[in-house]
Amino acid sequence: MLDIRPVLFVIGIMLAVLAGAMALPALADIAHGDSEWRIFIASAGVTAFVGIGLMLAARTPRMNFNLRQAFLLTTLSWIVVAAFGALPFLLAPLNLTYADAYFETMSGLTTTGSTVIVGLDKTSRGILLWRSLLHFIGGIGIIALAVAVLPLLRVGGMQLFRLESSDKSDKVLPRATQIAAGIFVVYVLLTAICSFLFWAGGMTGFEAINHAMATLATGGFSTSDSSFGKFDSAFLDATATVFMLAGGMTLTLFLRVYQGDYRVLWRDTQMQTYIGVFLGFSIAIAAWLFLAEGKTLGFAVRHATFTVSSVLTTTGFASTDWGLWGPFPLVLIFMLTFIGGCSGSTAGGIKIFRFQVLFEIGRAQMRQALLPSGVFIAKYNRKPISDGIAQSVLAFVTLYVFTWAVTSAALGLCGLDLVTSLAGAATALGNVGPGLGEIIGPAGTFAPLPTSAKWILSAAMLLGRLELITVLVLLSRRFWRD
Amino acid sequence: MLDIRPVLFVIGIMLAVLAGAMALPALADIAHGDSEWRIFIASAGVTAFVGIGLMLAARTPRMNFNLRQAFLLTTLSWIVVAAFGALPFLLAPLNLTYADAYFETMSGLTTTGSTVIVGLDKTSRGILLWRSLLHFIGGIGIIALAVAVLPLLRVGGMQLFRLESSDKSDKVLPRATQIAAGIFVVYVLLTAICSFLFWAGGMTGFEAINHAMATLATGGFSTSDSSFGKFDSAFLDATATVFMLAGGMTLTLFLRVYQGDYRVLWRDTQMQTYIGVFLGFSIAIAAWLFLAEGKTLGFAVRHATFTVSSVLTTTGFASTDWGLWGPFPLVLIFMLTFIGGCSGSTAGGIKIFRFQVLFEIGRAQMRQALLPSGVFIAKYNRKPISDGIAQSVLAFVTLYVFTWAVTSAALGLCGLDLVTSLAGAATALGNVGPGLGEIIGPAGTFAPLPTSAKWILSAAMLLGRLELITVLVLLSRRFWRD
Repeated sequence: MLDIRPVLFVIGIMLAVLAGAMALPALADIAHGDSEWRIFIASAGVTAFVGIGLMLAARTPRMNFNLRQAFLLTTLSWIVVAAFGALPFLLAPLNLTYADAYFETMSGLTTTGSTVIVGLDKTSRGILLWRSLLHFIGGIGIIALAVAVLPLLRVGGMQLFRLESSDKSDKVLPRATQIAAGIFVVYVLLTAICSFLFWAGGMTGFEAINHAMATLATGGFSTSDSSFGKFDSAFLDATATVFMLAGGMTLTLFLRVYQGDYRVLWRDTQMQTYIGVFLGFSIAIAAWLFLAEGKTLGFAVRHATFTVSSVLTTTGFASTDWGLWGPFPLVLIFMLTFIGGCSGSTAGGIKIFRFQVLFEIGRAQMRQALLPSGVFIAKYNRKPISDGIAQSVLAFVTLYVFTWAVTSAALGLCGLDLVTSLAGAATALGNVGPGLGEIIGPAGTFAPLPTSAKWILSAAMLLGRLELITVLVLLSRRFWRD
Repeated sequence: MLDIRPVLFVIGIMLAVLAGAMALPALADIAHGDSEWRIFIASAGVTAFVGIGLMLAARTPRMNFNLRQAFLLTTLSWIVVAAFGALPFLLAPLNLTYADAYFETMSGLTTTGSTVIVGLDKTSRGILLWRSLLHFIGGIGIIALAVAVLPLLRVGGMQLFRLESSDKSDKVLPRATQIAAGIFVVYVLLTAICSFLFWAGGMTGFEAINHAMATLATGGFSTSDSSFGKFDSAFLDATATVFMLAGGMTLTLFLRVYQGDYRVLWRDTQMQTYIGVFLGFSIAIAAWLFLAEGKTLGFAVRHATFTVSSVLTTTGFASTDWGLWGPFPLVLIFMLTFIGGCSGSTAGGIKIFRFQVLFEIGRAQMRQALLPSGVFIAKYNRKPISDGIAQSVLAFVTLYVFTWAVTSAALGLCGLDLVTSLAGAATALGNVGPGLGEIIGPAGTFAPLPTSAKWILSAAMLLGRLELITVLVLLSRRFWRD
């Protein structure tokens, strides 16, 4: 029998922490003299009650997690935390249904950044801060997961990034905890620096903190309907571009930099490709804007780099409505939706290293085709790619494309048009944020979609965030069999 | 040094045969009292002159092909044959540029079926027959290639289908020739039966022969702008549905049936999945047409099965304008564009067996994730999938998606809108025919596209037809190095 008590106990702890986090937006409202602080206290009360109840009810002396319990905890915790994180949105005077509130929360926690709230500029500070906090909590959560849990679950080739010391499983947790703590410090530090620069660049303190949390989490929630377009500042755009890129990098690399090893930044093959993709797409789009659309060179470079950084890192901020840039940039942006950032970052998508593995295997196969008697071995970071890794990456990418197809079809069934269906499924699965087309494009919101589509997209965001297999194994009969 | 004389010699033979084939449309024009027969004689003269010239100039006693020569011949022969096959289109009073004529010919030879000719109903019989003959020639060519050449080139997992007796390479050719001859008989027989049924169903003899050639080749050229919609006959639609499906099946299976082994048809795992995909998509689209679009059950079943069969087998006939069916069918049809038929058929696309290999590997990986100590081996047709096959399929699918992305971006650069770019690249690469959107949808043609887009699509059709790697190795430095 699968003992779910340890799972529920840990979820209870998470809910208690979530309830504590709701105090922050309450304070923001109080400081601003806004009576909406009550909704956060009410939400916190319900959340804490259920959380502490779960902790008491599910107490057990056997708190060792086996593999199945780890899988169940990973998925269930996100579903339940989103369910309670949605309470403030439901109680606030935003006219949201529970489907809307859940969508917004899942979008925040998965650092997607798609929104159903229209009129952000008039929304209370508490709610705006809560959205940013969801990004922050979700960002920390996914890095902890990527560093400590996913490599152990052998999901989607993530075993490439097992910590060297983790071969003996009894030693894993202390080392992982240590690294996770280090990353937490780096992450908070980067968020603080980003806040300061945003503030120095002309944002109010409140705007700066919110946008910084959304930037480092590669989330994309803004405090304004027009996102970064509201500020129209080259300095702010450039700062955001740099920090979004940082958010999409493998954060353990920064730890090594902190320890004095600067070379790791340009010696890491994933990093090189990541920067290469960023530059390649930026140059292509900037060239189009300058040559075909007749924009100034300054406009072209500034908005091309911002947009490529925003979509590649799956943040989803908009500095201008790139929906109007014509066909070529749209096709490139659609592709970027699938690529995503580096492993061990807050970015979503298929991720750079998987494309590298695919590419290296493809190259070895081409050589093999030309010289059948030769032996060509695909390598990643100067080490041979094992068959296990290759098949794991293959399975992930297959599942990703398959899930995208099924999600698109389901959205089509809800009545969405072709572009909205294809782009909506891609942006949710990749945790990007905005889609393509008039409804969900960078100038639109997800508010007009039917309720069914919102639930489907919420599920897709979760699937993408947890690297698919983590969630999908729960649907297999084998999982529940003894 | 790469000795290209044997390659040129064989291409010379092919051109001579092509010139001979041009006599048929000339005869059709003469029989119909149409003076356009002259253009075929002129084209045949030029083609024969160059072909025989090549044969004489490139004569060599060393006619043994090595691997590099085989790769070069495979790609170069299609490019050159298309270049001369385009002459009649250029000379006919159709107002086509050479880019148009080349596009039409490549579309015919690769059994794609995209057309740039508007006003087919008023086009001369010779031209219409020439289009169908290009399908026929291309269909035979691709099966010969799939049976005899591609498995030897170890391209995209096709080594799964190496003939059992082909392990000793000196025995390959006789056996392959024998099988190719058997398949030729089956193919011609099926085309004849299909012609008869089309004629019995109300087509004229000329229409019946042309449509039958386009059906078995899974090509899609019609003698009317409105394709099968012109006839509006349930019998003809059903007949076409069945024979398109037959064209998308592994034709060696029919050889086995001819030898008395009927069970092979439902024991073959690729066949089972192929029929499963056909039924699944047909039911989904028929249900949508009946329930959401309010069509009659008869309309829904007839046009859903026809359309799914047409796109799945990459034929591209239209029985009605499915561009108007609403979002859900469009998303499904877009997906079908990628799936394609069975290996060893005239169909294009990624092909069923590759999805099976991906799926089986994905399933084994899911089980592995749940039980890390277990050993799970993915199987295809009850045999383990070797790592070589897995990586080969992986490389193919990666290249396919990558080529699609690059082609889409290139089309966007030509100024095509997002849907036309994405669907145009997909339909060309999959050798399907019609795309999505108003321009290249089932009710449109490729005529309005800019010249650059036509060349790009011609290249994509060739890439898709020759399973990508066959063409792409020619672009590697290694190929030309000694």
